[in-house]
Amino acid sequence: MSRIAYVNGRYVRHRQATVHVEDRGYQFADGVYEVIAVRGGHLIDRGPHLDRLGRSLGELGIAWPMSRGALSVVLNQCVRRNRVDDGIVYLQMSRGVARRDHAIPANPVSSLVVTARNQTMAPEHFEAGIRVVTISDIRWKRCDIKSISLLPNVLAKQAAKDRGAFEAWQVDEEGFVTEGSSTNAWIVTPDGVLVTRHLGTSILSGITRLVFLDLARRHNITLVERSFSRDEALEASEAFLTSTTSCILPVVQIDDHVLRNGRPGPMTRRLRALYDEYIDGLRVGLVGARKR
Amino acid sequence: MSRIAYVNGRYVRHRQATVHVEDRGYQFADGVYEVIAVRGGHLIDRGPHLDRLGRSLGELGIAWPMSRGALSVVLNQCVRRNRVDDGIVYLQMSRGVARRDHAIPANPVSSLVVTARNQTMAPEHFEAGIRVVTISDIRWKRCDIKSISLLPNVLAKQAAKDRGAFEAWQVDEEGFVTEGSSTNAWIVTPDGVLVTRHLGTSILSGITRLVFLDLARRHNITLVERSFSRDEALEASEAFLTSTTSCILPVVQIDDHVLRNGRPGPMTRRLRALYDEYIDGLRVGLVGARKR
Repeated sequence: MSRIAYVNGRYVRHRQATVHVEDRGYQFADGVYEVIAVRGGHLIDRGPHLDRLGRSLGELGIAWPMSRGALSVVLNQCVRRNRVDDGIVYLQMSRGVARRDHAIPANPVSSLVVTARNQTMAPEHFEAGIRVVTISDIRWKRCDIKSISLLPNVLAKQAAKDRGAFEAWQVDEEGFVTEGSSTNAWIVTPDGVLVTRHLGTSILSGITRLVFLDLARRHNITLVERSFSRDEALEASEAFLTSTTSCILPVVQIDDHVLRNGRPGPMTRRLRALYDEYIDGLRVGLVGARKR
Repeated sequence: MSRIAYVNGRYVRHRQATVHVEDRGYQFADGVYEVIAVRGGHLIDRGPHLDRLGRSLGELGIAWPMSRGALSVVLNQCVRRNRVDDGIVYLQMSRGVARRDHAIPANPVSSLVVTARNQTMAPEHFEAGIRVVTISDIRWKRCDIKSISLLPNVLAKQAAKDRGAFEAWQVDEEGFVTEGSSTNAWIVTPDGVLVTRHLGTSILSGITRLVFLDLARRHNITLVERSFSRDEALEASEAFLTSTTSCILPVVQIDDHVLRNGRPGPMTRRLRALYDEYIDGLRVGLVGARKR
């Protein structure tokens, strides 16, 4: 089956999915994106993703190319037309096509591209755990905006890959971990407190991060949103990362330091189980909603 | 006459110049660019521009999509096919098309897009001078790479425009001016010393900046490459900016502070005259080279 993409009003074969060279997304990284998980053919956490998308657009003054309702139709069409069962939908909006000039053009027409594909969502990495390396955070100061200006993230992920790791934890000038190149960072302190960095302009408000915060609160897990240093992470009882595509993955090594003899910890396992329950609940709910 | 663009091996009508939605330039800002001035149909400072391009590609590990010689042929073709007399050539290279994943794909094939257009190169702004505003520099820490990850520069230029100014001078955390959103920043101290920020990872090595440094040295103008603060700029005898598309423009107001009663200063005028001589010399040389 050939893949189908949505590009500015049309469903086209993936191979023929193109945008103009003067799309400001291509020349200026002047755009935003979201990646939404699909489970059993259903979009997971669509509402929070579209809320965050709206915030990113608002911070940059980019207009919605269509209503949220119409966008949801397009997202579902892309899932259906690509027969995605478990996978992801990728959507990107840019400020549209204009004669090249840094300043924002008058009356721009935002671009919208949507792709979808099957992809294993429960990585085999869970039992083995993954390694992270730490690197300096060299990104801009508005990492709360989910923009396509991702070159530093590319370099960060590649730095991890070059050192045989899954992810790079970026460290700010004060020595505190901000986040991974495409994931949020968490630790469990020796006295069992779950810690992840507070929101601000240094990290993205991950949707999966929000879900885990909510799960922890509902299950009375002691939780603090605050900065933690690389040194604190090395002394942590457990560490893990979260993202839409990785869900939750145990971090068993940070640079050369092995945590917990390289095995996933009990808190990480518990959160993973709670997340699986959450997803099962959503699927039941979504199927129920469709049947009604 | 319809405009022609070069896209990955083909000369196409500008309207039909497209790249794939999974070009990493579109999804990750994973690419670099150059803007080269054209005067009398000739590329100005092509060598230094291609040197800088090579450095940007090298820093990111992106392969040249073709040799420098072949690229020069394409650039000249774009000038000729678009009948550009005085204007610019824009060239962009990205890491090419790949299934979306932050890490660098195996064996990527770099993309190349070239456009050209006529554009007045000696702005009418010179006599009137221009205003700049100062803003915090929120960009990443590798501004020495001429990448297309330009969203912060877009926001900076727009901040200037919103306040009725031509450019925004970005100020680092220590209070020193780095550069404009697409121009280099210069001042002349009260005792007549020409000052522009030293190279490093905080600014781009502007080609026009290099030309002016060379002109100043050859004409025994006292010159220092060092940081200068916003406060020092407000007390400067003169201020100006340089870039490929603006050449040299007198800055007559910084935020609410008017410099020199709003008139271009003698050093700025002298440098402008030297630059005009330099360009005239290049054109004579280029025409001579073509005749030989």
